[in-house]
Amino acid sequence: MGSGHLGGEALRRVRAFGPASIGNVAAGFDVLGAAIRPLTGAPWGDWVEVGGAEVSSFVCEGPFAHRLPLAPEDNLALKACGAFQRILGSSLPPLALRLHKGLPVGSGLGSSSATVVAALKALNAFLDNPFREDQLLEAAGEAEGHGCGAAHLDNVAPALLGGLRLVDATGRAHALPFPEALRFVVVSPRLELTTREARRAMPPEVSMGLAVAHAQNLAGLVHALHAGDGELRRACLRDLLAEPHRAPLVAGFREVQAAAIEAGAEGCTFSGAGPAMFAVATADAAQAVGASMVSAWANAGVGAAFRCCELDHQGARIEENA
Amino acid sequence: MGSGHLGGEALRRVRAFGPASIGNVAAGFDVLGAAIRPLTGAPWGDWVEVGGAEVSSFVCEGPFAHRLPLAPEDNLALKACGAFQRILGSSLPPLALRLHKGLPVGSGLGSSSATVVAALKALNAFLDNPFREDQLLEAAGEAEGHGCGAAHLDNVAPALLGGLRLVDATGRAHALPFPEALRFVVVSPRLELTTREARRAMPPEVSMGLAVAHAQNLAGLVHALHAGDGELRRACLRDLLAEPHRAPLVAGFREVQAAAIEAGAEGCTFSGAGPAMFAVATADAAQAVGASMVSAWANAGVGAAFRCCELDHQGARIEENA
Repeated sequence: MGSGHLGGEALRRVRAFGPASIGNVAAGFDVLGAAIRPLTGAPWGDWVEVGGAEVSSFVCEGPFAHRLPLAPEDNLALKACGAFQRILGSSLPPLALRLHKGLPVGSGLGSSSATVVAALKALNAFLDNPFREDQLLEAAGEAEGHGCGAAHLDNVAPALLGGLRLVDATGRAHALPFPEALRFVVVSPRLELTTREARRAMPPEVSMGLAVAHAQNLAGLVHALHAGDGELRRACLRDLLAEPHRAPLVAGFREVQAAAIEAGAEGCTFSGAGPAMFAVATADAAQAVGASMVSAWANAGVGAAFRCCELDHQGARIEENA
Repeated sequence: MGSGHLGGEALRRVRAFGPASIGNVAAGFDVLGAAIRPLTGAPWGDWVEVGGAEVSSFVCEGPFAHRLPLAPEDNLALKACGAFQRILGSSLPPLALRLHKGLPVGSGLGSSSATVVAALKALNAFLDNPFREDQLLEAAGEAEGHGCGAAHLDNVAPALLGGLRLVDATGRAHALPFPEALRFVVVSPRLELTTREARRAMPPEVSMGLAVAHAQNLAGLVHALHAGDGELRRACLRDLLAEPHRAPLVAGFREVQAAAIEAGAEGCTFSGAGPAMFAVATADAAQAVGASMVSAWANAGVGAAFRCCELDHQGARIEENA
């Protein structure tokens, strides 16, 4: 058990993984998110390794490293360290930080959150866990806020804590039950849409009737999940608030959504701010749903790939602590 | 077992009771309602008696009968019969109808709904139950729609079915769990506020941020009730959507609300469209909460009375069938 605080153990290394996540889960614009784990193939997420050092350093690697901001201080792994330090109230020791960027940037898969939670989880373990989970979540929200203009915890909360999470007004993130038999089919088209662009498409005001209907729909989904009411769940797996404004930004969206439903999905909309989309489907239907969505993207002239995922109940985790 | 359909048994009588209810329960504007039952003293609600007759008749009695529309065809008991007949698809026999109006009109206690559900329940029993509960709820929504300009089921659903009910977009009403130890303290000031007036105070649009916060709050309340999370429940027992616009219509509201919270209530806002208010409090605190609220009304120069209620799990019920 070393004391990383003092930076005296240059050889100590901790590596953490932050999973992909779906923000804005259907009815839950800005407040409902899901950490996801592909059922087959390589893990989906980012890794951050923290090691002791004489002089601080930062390395960025992996398939999407070239898409990150060039200035290291703009990197979310370092912003996470800054937030950690601020809440800790004392300086961090010199650190050798290495980010392996496994998630595409601007994809709707919670790329920012994966980096942030992997960095915080690694840092906390490296420093012998000075923070509880709620403090890590606070730090994560602070670090992510820089990325999209405001702190929306619907990606960082599940990426950090795992599961399907409803974020409350005080920043607590509550785990909702979710049927084990259901899959999240995630389809990534070769398109880009920044969160900033997607946010700009949202109108500043909505009708009172829509506000009531949106709340009814989200509350209905939460009730359906607790009560195991499949009929209500299927009815409520939709986004009344953001989707109508964001769908026009992505040519092909409606066709892909229709293909998913046609193939048996319970619901289908953007993952986070898009352009990735997710469908909720039974294990039996998941492959067909994914194939139909990819085929609909092809018809729209857009290449796409799908992965069948389950909920990642674990969230960010230490993979190596040596 | 008589066949009321044929109107041949002039002596047969069925009497049903429809309980008081709280609409717009805190976070649940337009979609969340609670049927309530005072713990002591006289029942709170309306009664409708249906009997066979050679010629149809309608009698209205009770302490608040004089406040009802003079034209019988405007009475909600008769509108309920009309909705029943429309959904049944055949004419009703001649009926002797008697409404005992036990709830004050325009009070925020679900007076319209109590009449409607009592009439429907009595009528259904009198006709040997041609309708299931969902059909009765459909008829109730139709009958109530005449009273407030649109069908909002948050009063009729609990008044008919009992309990705390979340109404979904298709008009199904889902029972939510609610701690047995909690009371609804209902305070009725000597003021009037029509539902129409209270609705007019609502703006046609709200900010996107408020729409998100309102949905988060309602979903949080639903989760808290299922998960037994008292801290979250207390945080979510508030109305972000309607209260800010309706409070200014009722001088004294803020002071009474503050008095309830000060006396230990978990939350306090309008019952339905007001002016009645309800507070949620533990059985231990309920009396003190009620007394504090009445005292705050007195300070505002308004007479008021309170009753401590529990959830009425039963809803509308047959009291006599002979």
